[in-house]
Amino acid sequence: MTDERISERTGRHGPTIRDVARIAGVSIGTASKALNANGRLRQETRDKVMAVAREIGYRPNDMAQSLHRTRSMTVGVLSTDSFGRFTLPIFKALEEEFADQGIAIFMCNATDDPERERQHLDQLLGKRIDGLVVTARRSDKRSPVGPLPPGLPVIYVFSQADDEESLSLVPDDESGARLAVRHLAEVGCTRIACVTGPEHFESVTLRRRGYSQSLREAGLPEHPEYYLPGPWSEAWGREAVGLLFDGKAERPDGLFCGNDQIARGAAEALRERAIDVPGQVAIVGFDNWNVMTDAARPPLSSVDMNLAALGHEAGRLLMDMIGGETIRGLRRLPCTLVVRDSSSR
Amino acid sequence: MTDERISERTGRHGPTIRDVARIAGVSIGTASKALNANGRLRQETRDKVMAVAREIGYRPNDMAQSLHRTRSMTVGVLSTDSFGRFTLPIFKALEEEFADQGIAIFMCNATDDPERERQHLDQLLGKRIDGLVVTARRSDKRSPVGPLPPGLPVIYVFSQADDEESLSLVPDDESGARLAVRHLAEVGCTRIACVTGPEHFESVTLRRRGYSQSLREAGLPEHPEYYLPGPWSEAWGREAVGLLFDGKAERPDGLFCGNDQIARGAAEALRERAIDVPGQVAIVGFDNWNVMTDAARPPLSSVDMNLAALGHEAGRLLMDMIGGETIRGLRRLPCTLVVRDSSSR
Repeated sequence: MTDERISERTGRHGPTIRDVARIAGVSIGTASKALNANGRLRQETRDKVMAVAREIGYRPNDMAQSLHRTRSMTVGVLSTDSFGRFTLPIFKALEEEFADQGIAIFMCNATDDPERERQHLDQLLGKRIDGLVVTARRSDKRSPVGPLPPGLPVIYVFSQADDEESLSLVPDDESGARLAVRHLAEVGCTRIACVTGPEHFESVTLRRRGYSQSLREAGLPEHPEYYLPGPWSEAWGREAVGLLFDGKAERPDGLFCGNDQIARGAAEALRERAIDVPGQVAIVGFDNWNVMTDAARPPLSSVDMNLAALGHEAGRLLMDMIGGETIRGLRRLPCTLVVRDSSSR
Repeated sequence: MTDERISERTGRHGPTIRDVARIAGVSIGTASKALNANGRLRQETRDKVMAVAREIGYRPNDMAQSLHRTRSMTVGVLSTDSFGRFTLPIFKALEEEFADQGIAIFMCNATDDPERERQHLDQLLGKRIDGLVVTARRSDKRSPVGPLPPGLPVIYVFSQADDEESLSLVPDDESGARLAVRHLAEVGCTRIACVTGPEHFESVTLRRRGYSQSLREAGLPEHPEYYLPGPWSEAWGREAVGLLFDGKAERPDGLFCGNDQIARGAAEALRERAIDVPGQVAIVGFDNWNVMTDAARPPLSSVDMNLAALGHEAGRLLMDMIGGETIRGLRRLPCTLVVRDSSSR
């Protein structure tokens, strides 16, 4: 559409919702629903209205509208992760999800500082947000944020509210561990060790449960000395290899590691001992963090927590809640296994 | 202050700005200036008013106010980095800076997608933001965002607008490189190689200039075969060590690397050749990314771009611009050198 045709159709004072409706061939009510991402509409209608709005440069005065509607077209995201590695893919997904609905995101960070969290929350509530996403550095339980106005939709993502009224989305750590250990058994490992993170993380205990279960299912023995919790570091991966291999008659032939840093450290330590990976020992890490998986020698197989999918699902659920649905409980979303050289036999 | 005293002093309908002013012992105008972070006030006065407001639970209706004031108390942050590693510390700093001023941040991401960027910009302008921060995955020049309403304060951070009217803040890559190379010379290196990233990055050409200059200043020769641009990866660091060391009579005794991944790869490759770091070869990386610097053996010295300081400065400058100042041009902020074992002699 040329500029001339637009100006002809939309008048001098900038396009209005009437212009959008007329050009899209829909009623003003339908145009409003589409532009405000509420009500039920067919996707084609919504797309057509949005395309026209974009084309003619329609820009609603959101601020003025928000006083007259119940919605501000904003949501708040409150993080306690300093915008860290785990929450990044979640932010990105939320952002994509909300941008498509014409909703803007207020982003706040309050790393382990309840006072700061309170201050951010006050600010967000002052902005009359339509909904709130709470996310964290680790998926463990936390006390619910608040107090909040009754009815404000809230969702915890990669974080769990210690409160049955809330909705929380986390990765399914236990089944993620099962994917890894089942795979190691399938490629022929019979003595599978687990080198993992600190046990006060819920993810560590859940993954241990998955590890034990999969060993049983595969008919493999579980040696207590093959379960090694420790720090989340490469140095721990290297150290654990020393504990498991040096001077031992019966050595593991498979390693399930709590994260990719541990897995990388383990791979390096095995390399230095001239123990072949994956020939003599197959390794699977956790997180699928490409900085680690790709730089390790060999590249690491790893369990992906699908944090982007978690973020997209959170965005969709929050939209449903903003639309009036009540959704509660704890949902664990599936992980997937990405196989690379470290376990390819 | 007890709840009783608060309710006594503030009445039944929740505290108002009048209550804040009365309790803080200032005029309503002064309270307003302090609460809205505009006008000139002594820091003590501002702090006192904010403390009272927090204590009595004063919460302005920002949305309604914004229609009657010129300010919405929001800024937009537009990233093209998918909330990546370089922009994280910048976000965090901006967030701290603005939160202290009672300003909320709209965060948008538009990775290499001009259509998406336009859409985000429209949305931000619809929210009547007071100012805009543009940030990116790399500090190279980009075409200015827009069109924007005249007078909207905009600042580019870790990104440069290709436009003399704009204000851009980037790290001083050239002087960062000089810090590294001067340090290598000081610890006794006389044959200093530079293993760096792709030359189409401005940072790579600036750092090369700093490298050459520092060699000249230290009276050291610059061997063309000692300058090796390549990918930003550990694998490139390992490969470059092969090129510089294997079968060579005259080997480098210092390596200045373009990032910490290259430096880590180089350190590993030297370790495998039983060449002692820092004894025979001292290494300095760039970025001071602790995931790499701390896991490398030995831990890596590195140049820190001080991205948090960059973010804080950007926040302060944007506040000044929102307050009415005109600020233009390109500012390069200093890097610092963090010395660890890889160059400690």
